[in-house]
Amino acid sequence: MPDQPLHTPGAPARVFADRHIGPTPAETQEMLKAVGYGSPAELMADAVPESILTGPGKSAPLNLPEAIGEAEALAELRELASRNDTRTSLIGQGYYGTFTPPVILRNIMENPAWYTAYTPYQPEISQGRLEALLNFQTMVSDLTGLPVSGASLLDEATAAAEAMTLARRASRSKADVFVVDSDVFPQTLQVLRTRAEPLGIEIVVADLSRGLPEDEAFGVLVQYPASSGAVRDPGTVIARAHERGALAVVAADILALTLLRSPGDLGADIAVGSTQRLGVPLGFGGPHAGYMAVSEKLRRQLPGRLVGVSVDNAGRPAYRLALQTREQHIRREKATSNICTAQVLLAVMAGMYAVYHGPDGLRAIARQVHTRTAALADALAERGFEVVHSAYFDTLRVRVPGADRVVRSALEAGYNLLAVDRDTVGVSVDETTTEADLEQVLAAFGESERGPSRGRLGVDEAADRLPAGLAREIDYLTHPVFNTHRSETSLLRYMRRLSDRDLALDRTMIPLGSCTMKLNSTTEMEPVTWPEFAGLHPLAPLDQAAGSVALIHDLEAWLAEVTGYDAVSLQPNAGSQGELAGLLAIRGHHRSRGEAHRDVCLIPSSAHGTNAASAVMAGMRVAVVACDDNGNVDMDDLRAKTAEHAEDLAAIMVTYPSTHGVYESTITEVCRLVHEAGGQVYVDGANLNALLGWAKPGEFGADVSHLNLHKTFCIPHGGGGPGVGPVAVRSHLAGFLPNHPSQPEAGPHTGVGPVSAAPFGSAGILPISWAYMRMMGEEGLRSATEIAVLSANYLARRLEPYFPVLYTGADGLVAHECVIDIRPLQKASGISNEDVAKRLMDYGFHAPTMSFPVNGTLMVEPTESENLAELDRFVEAMVAIRGEIDRVASGEWDAEDNPLRNAPHTAEAVTADEWGHGYTRAEAAYPLASLRTDKYWPPVGRIDQAYGDRNLVCSCPPPEAFQM
Amino acid sequence: MPDQPLHTPGAPARVFADRHIGPTPAETQEMLKAVGYGSPAELMADAVPESILTGPGKSAPLNLPEAIGEAEALAELRELASRNDTRTSLIGQGYYGTFTPPVILRNIMENPAWYTAYTPYQPEISQGRLEALLNFQTMVSDLTGLPVSGASLLDEATAAAEAMTLARRASRSKADVFVVDSDVFPQTLQVLRTRAEPLGIEIVVADLSRGLPEDEAFGVLVQYPASSGAVRDPGTVIARAHERGALAVVAADILALTLLRSPGDLGADIAVGSTQRLGVPLGFGGPHAGYMAVSEKLRRQLPGRLVGVSVDNAGRPAYRLALQTREQHIRREKATSNICTAQVLLAVMAGMYAVYHGPDGLRAIARQVHTRTAALADALAERGFEVVHSAYFDTLRVRVPGADRVVRSALEAGYNLLAVDRDTVGVSVDETTTEADLEQVLAAFGESERGPSRGRLGVDEAADRLPAGLAREIDYLTHPVFNTHRSETSLLRYMRRLSDRDLALDRTMIPLGSCTMKLNSTTEMEPVTWPEFAGLHPLAPLDQAAGSVALIHDLEAWLAEVTGYDAVSLQPNAGSQGELAGLLAIRGHHRSRGEAHRDVCLIPSSAHGTNAASAVMAGMRVAVVACDDNGNVDMDDLRAKTAEHAEDLAAIMVTYPSTHGVYESTITEVCRLVHEAGGQVYVDGANLNALLGWAKPGEFGADVSHLNLHKTFCIPHGGGGPGVGPVAVRSHLAGFLPNHPSQPEAGPHTGVGPVSAAPFGSAGILPISWAYMRMMGEEGLRSATEIAVLSANYLARRLEPYFPVLYTGADGLVAHECVIDIRPLQKASGISNEDVAKRLMDYGFHAPTMSFPVNGTLMVEPTESENLAELDRFVEAMVAIRGEIDRVASGEWDAEDNPLRNAPHTAEAVTADEWGHGYTRAEAAYPLASLRTDKYWPPVGRIDQAYGDRNLVCSCPPPEAFQM
Repeated sequence: MPDQPLHTPGAPARVFADRHIGPTPAETQEMLKAVGYGSPAELMADAVPESILTGPGKSAPLNLPEAIGEAEALAELRELASRNDTRTSLIGQGYYGTFTPPVILRNIMENPAWYTAYTPYQPEISQGRLEALLNFQTMVSDLTGLPVSGASLLDEATAAAEAMTLARRASRSKADVFVVDSDVFPQTLQVLRTRAEPLGIEIVVADLSRGLPEDEAFGVLVQYPASSGAVRDPGTVIARAHERGALAVVAADILALTLLRSPGDLGADIAVGSTQRLGVPLGFGGPHAGYMAVSEKLRRQLPGRLVGVSVDNAGRPAYRLALQTREQHIRREKATSNICTAQVLLAVMAGMYAVYHGPDGLRAIARQVHTRTAALADALAERGFEVVHSAYFDTLRVRVPGADRVVRSALEAGYNLLAVDRDTVGVSVDETTTEADLEQVLAAFGESERGPSRGRLGVDEAADRLPAGLAREIDYLTHPVFNTHRSETSLLRYMRRLSDRDLALDRTMIPLGSCTMKLNSTTEMEPVTWPEFAGLHPLAPLDQAAGSVALIHDLEAWLAEVTGYDAVSLQPNAGSQGELAGLLAIRGHHRSRGEAHRDVCLIPSSAHGTNAASAVMAGMRVAVVACDDNGNVDMDDLRAKTAEHAEDLAAIMVTYPSTHGVYESTITEVCRLVHEAGGQVYVDGANLNALLGWAKPGEFGADVSHLNLHKTFCIPHGGGGPGVGPVAVRSHLAGFLPNHPSQPEAGPHTGVGPVSAAPFGSAGILPISWAYMRMMGEEGLRSATEIAVLSANYLARRLEPYFPVLYTGADGLVAHECVIDIRPLQKASGISNEDVAKRLMDYGFHAPTMSFPVNGTLMVEPTESENLAELDRFVEAMVAIRGEIDRVASGEWDAEDNPLRNAPHTAEAVTADEWGHGYTRAEAAYPLASLRTDKYWPPVGRIDQAYGDRNLVCSCPPPEAFQM
Repeated sequence: MPDQPLHTPGAPARVFADRHIGPTPAETQEMLKAVGYGSPAELMADAVPESILTGPGKSAPLNLPEAIGEAEALAELRELASRNDTRTSLIGQGYYGTFTPPVILRNIMENPAWYTAYTPYQPEISQGRLEALLNFQTMVSDLTGLPVSGASLLDEATAAAEAMTLARRASRSKADVFVVDSDVFPQTLQVLRTRAEPLGIEIVVADLSRGLPEDEAFGVLVQYPASSGAVRDPGTVIARAHERGALAVVAADILALTLLRSPGDLGADIAVGSTQRLGVPLGFGGPHAGYMAVSEKLRRQLPGRLVGVSVDNAGRPAYRLALQTREQHIRREKATSNICTAQVLLAVMAGMYAVYHGPDGLRAIARQVHTRTAALADALAERGFEVVHSAYFDTLRVRVPGADRVVRSALEAGYNLLAVDRDTVGVSVDETTTEADLEQVLAAFGESERGPSRGRLGVDEAADRLPAGLAREIDYLTHPVFNTHRSETSLLRYMRRLSDRDLALDRTMIPLGSCTMKLNSTTEMEPVTWPEFAGLHPLAPLDQAAGSVALIHDLEAWLAEVTGYDAVSLQPNAGSQGELAGLLAIRGHHRSRGEAHRDVCLIPSSAHGTNAASAVMAGMRVAVVACDDNGNVDMDDLRAKTAEHAEDLAAIMVTYPSTHGVYESTITEVCRLVHEAGGQVYVDGANLNALLGWAKPGEFGADVSHLNLHKTFCIPHGGGGPGVGPVAVRSHLAGFLPNHPSQPEAGPHTGVGPVSAAPFGSAGILPISWAYMRMMGEEGLRSATEIAVLSANYLARRLEPYFPVLYTGADGLVAHECVIDIRPLQKASGISNEDVAKRLMDYGFHAPTMSFPVNGTLMVEPTESENLAELDRFVEAMVAIRGEIDRVASGEWDAEDNPLRNAPHTAEAVTADEWGHGYTRAEAAYPLASLRTDKYWPPVGRIDQAYGDRNLVCSCPPPEAFQM
């Protein structure tokens, strides 16, 4: 029997690692042999510069708890979950109870076909989630009354911040003032402040119900309904803003918009908000999909992802990401936002919630919420309590002396209310609130001074406390997709059809360089949807979240340990936010030392584009450091730049291993030079998968890093989000980590303010990374790094005879990914790296990263989770493709009519009655015999990107469009 | 906007029913119009005979609790779950703690692609689960050392009973004696008794460790390891049995066989057992997959499902059910077993567990179990307790005065031990038992008289307490499939690949007449895998199962209410067992009245074949009642038969509505005639979906029915099981329901004994039916019936112009299914109903039921869960197929080379470089334009059934077999 025992009694620590890591011990030996090493440790010793290696006599080994097995980890997680006390939260403030239809929960949020998918950069194999996202966009666009909606932002508060900077770019006004209504959610205001300060934007807070202040401003934001629950007509403020050349942003409750006139209808330029209450679990704050919709004239300014409709090479309508030229990875320091990840999985869920309920269903839910709110208001008023606002949707402010007493009394009955101030209580009703709940809330208010009440709660279905002039009259969700899937069976099949169109990790390796598509194990995923974790309101009293808080503290401590830093904040809910938080910490540090003038950020030319965008957002000026031909930092240029900027140097941002997949041996020297010049060192943690257990950035010279939990720490990519981007810092920066206005425990009181809406960011998915680290332990994590590096080197060695491997370190080794060069072949054959990427789809693969870090290349990252059979399957495909390129180069196949240029091939194309190509159907569809079973057929052919950008359509096209 | 509001506030009761029922109100109107009725109620009033209708002035409406929504139902189920107290059970007795790998739990047991699949009668679209079942067979065959294993029986005890009757058929001995070792599981012995008695088999219980008794016998059964844990060499008993012409049956622990010599190696003819401990949750007793493996010469005698390898029309290896001629639906009263459903879903899980762990992993698990058992034994012995057996695998018998005290003390520490007798405690160790658990168990024994112990538990990995001569030396699981998928990623993809080959309800309607493939909603399914339901041992103290018991009592009461009966037993774990239980109740009734001679069972010629097989198993003689051309009972013949058998009539078994899908108006007259002749009326509940809420068998004249919870009550078919077949009786039969030796609460003390191994049968899946009834309520259930009948009549009306609809009632209406006749078309064209069935696969459908109840027909049952779009898609496909048949009939297409005869078409076939057919590729693959998106491609072409039976291969073929 071939392999060594896996479940060796007495060695349970190995068990999960053996499942997570693809190659078996025997396969590892085979791979080592190919690479020419005797053991993974020897390979690592050669690959990683001696100067940064942890190990005996150097940095301490990882001080983590002993690894445990899957059953034990689940037991510990259940114990943590049991320490959470999920009461009914009627706190509101942007977070509401919602009932996720179980068919959506199980078949999207708990389904690897959806959650292991990558961002749809390769649209031909992403048509399913692109359609789901187009549904989301259509829903947001319909409800907000604005024609162009993106496919989700990170949360409502950061969406508001993005709206602010968009308004600044697009406004006629040259003022640096952004006016914010005083009745907005506290976290929205504070995130705006965090983001405004480094950019020199002045936030003016004003009670807009009294009119717009006279200051000149480039934009104004009003909440609709307001944080206090009041529903006010924003029309006048919007009109005044426009008169002065300012743009109007409305932060709107997506459910309320089913009953209220839309922001677009009222003249707004931009609408933002959260779609959490459309079936996305609270999750102690996230992840949820934020939204932004804009007017036609702002569409090319929209930050984040935008799905559009184009056509494929057979003229079929086909979806893909539109207007990607707006994005930070292309525009670098010219970028207008550093947003990269979206919240795809959650946007898909919210969109499906709308598909399932349809316009009538959503309206009925909103009506129920509203009439129950009205019933509570009436009962309170009848008892002599003052309900502050006469027009409201779902939220009441109730004046009651001794508000604390009411909140406490409600708490005892199992309900969280909002303590607004000493004399005011807030109550927000949601879809899950029953009449019995309201009776209990009512009882918590007690008897008023006016004496006993005269009756019980009376829900009048006709009650309407929305201002008459704001009643919605414009239809929404009229597209058939929102009016078709009323039965569970129908929705289930629709979701299955969509997911079947896509290639995710559950069907194939996704060898994406820099993206680390490793296993997202089921044990890690299971706890995410347990009610104890999924049902917590982010502003619930912290003693109700004892289990989640303990888990967060564990994870912070473990992440600090493995990175060599002193403090970690889990608040940033994407890598981009982590970058910003890290740079803000550096900014705070310099300012605290009276060195506010230090504002230059050095960025090597090979860096992720996001780095530069983030630096600009943190108020820094970018200076580029040259790289040599191998993508390594040009040390001479670095010396020159540090000398040049000795007075104003703030930081350097480097990725390690480099974005070229190389362990630069000069890293410690880089750190020294920058420190000597008074700068701080930011190490982008994108490639931490190549370091974990072998080197610690916090110990080899860096001051701050952000990590990507959705890369190294197993949070699934979700088809393009959620991500989590914790920031880790050395102690001198710890005081400048993010904090939160509503939750002192979330960060230092000296902190830079919140960078995300929720105190602990996307707390709902942190059990994933917790479980991963708990089950891997030191040995497992070290081993994962070894195998990731070994696998990349194995691929490099196997592919080298067919494709030049571009960058290697001193020992001829790559790190955890390798770059293969298609340019010489393209010169000979005309076949581009894009053709190879598309052709790989015919072989059943997701393409590697294209043209990053270098145009004309493919960057391959196998991760540690792929076994040898899958690595070899990839090699076999690439070798076969090389053979195909040769046939083009030799003229045997036409330069245009060949399987590479025509890739990917749909089933329809290959079964066409007429076959006019210079290659056979079998060569098109089954270039390898192994493809004859379980063949994946791309649903569309090559998509015309330019056509879609020229003819921008960003909401669901009519069904007739699909009739061929 | 098209439809009426779904979520009408104030009408929550409709919510779930609206999701379960496919057609919206608007669609219902359209369908009614097509059928010519104004309302569903009018249709029902015409379709159902007046004499049996419930309603005003007749039978009372359904007295069920008010329907609740999905959120509320989940909340109630969570409350019930919280009443279960899942301690660690070390009780053994055939049920063991096991850790289901989460990747298997989520991606099989919680995945509709697996659980909504039907029995693989259409093998071309079932290749995935057939391969998974072949893995199961190979695993069982390897471990038992017997060459032919079936693809699961219902549980170990019924498998033993099947082995007994198999032995009787196959034995040279004419004796009626079956010898059973005294050291077998109590439930096995009692099920054997239940099954033996009506067949005139004498069970002789003997201590076979002292040798085989002298009685002549046709078979002998020994447990290996024994119920007491003792491991004894069964070789001698087997040899003695063979000498006397008896067959030897070994009930073996599947995990122990990884370390012990196999039954086959020891000479056994038959091995039976359970595969529960291979990753299948305890579930308070089931469902789990029982197994049976037999020697080569018995292979055509094997009861239940057998998967075999054959070839398709392109010569590809292809799987399908083998030797179906053995089955009861063909052999009727000549059948040797009434087993129909298997435990496919659970067999798939157990097989995947073996695939994931592989031979080394399984062996390591068994070693861990064994060494920990040995450590416990040593520690107990050291403390002066007598460990009864010196050779054991995982189970100890410990002699200790005051065994009760030890059991109680363990209970307080959170452990269930087995109280064997006053002085003996049983402990069974399993894969989940930790050393800490054993320390606690040890502590529960307390200090012995010999004084304090001298140390703690010491686990010695080398300990071996298996008899040297029984150490296993023969390899197992050497096939590559058991040695490939070591990483979670690899297993995940393998399972996905398999499920993608199959068509289940998550992709298409499965319009199978008589099988009722309706929605299995996620809300119903969720609780099944909650640990509180999934983790209960069936023999745990009942106060630990308070929630499950309450749920069982609810469900019994509700089922009694809706069927009009007085008592219900949920123990039968398949419809076949329910039938047997019902007939045994009738038998018991007659015998209790001194009328044991009443043994004739009338069965209409149109009945399910299972009926006759069950009657024979219940010791009855079958007399067939003729049917008229419409499949209705011939009343004249019935009068003649009741007269003829006035003295010896035991019962009549009828299906209602009839197996032809007709509400026979004579049903009350049938009941009257049989009762007058002293017989009892058995109404087969297979078609209850057409009655629920509109008629109650228990009130229109029947005495007993079995129900199929996997039909009418939403338990998914699981690809061919689990099923649940409760038996419902009027009060005079209630004393003859099943009971259980280990659980007095499970049935009346006057009962007929157990028909299944577990006290409450497949209790683990009862939350499904509970949730369905709780969420539907009276109105929902009545409405489901209406729409099921309306949908069938809609299809009949739409298809009639193209295919003759065979059977209708007095008003020209069908019930919930319709039979369409292909014979006239076959006469004209040569195209058979099988060709139509296979061609439907090209259209993306699972075929309707073929040739039942009448050869040459198709029986279509849409159920209430399909919406109008899906019904119309089916009609469109059938109309198109009719057009294709016409082209064959007219000679336009060749009689042999046409898309119907060549169906189904694989992608490989349609993309072949040579296309020699007289029809186009497009006509083959895309006969309708709608098929061009999301096309399902069958993985193999038409399978040669006869070839596979002639060349029987029932375990995994070598990979080379698949090289084309």
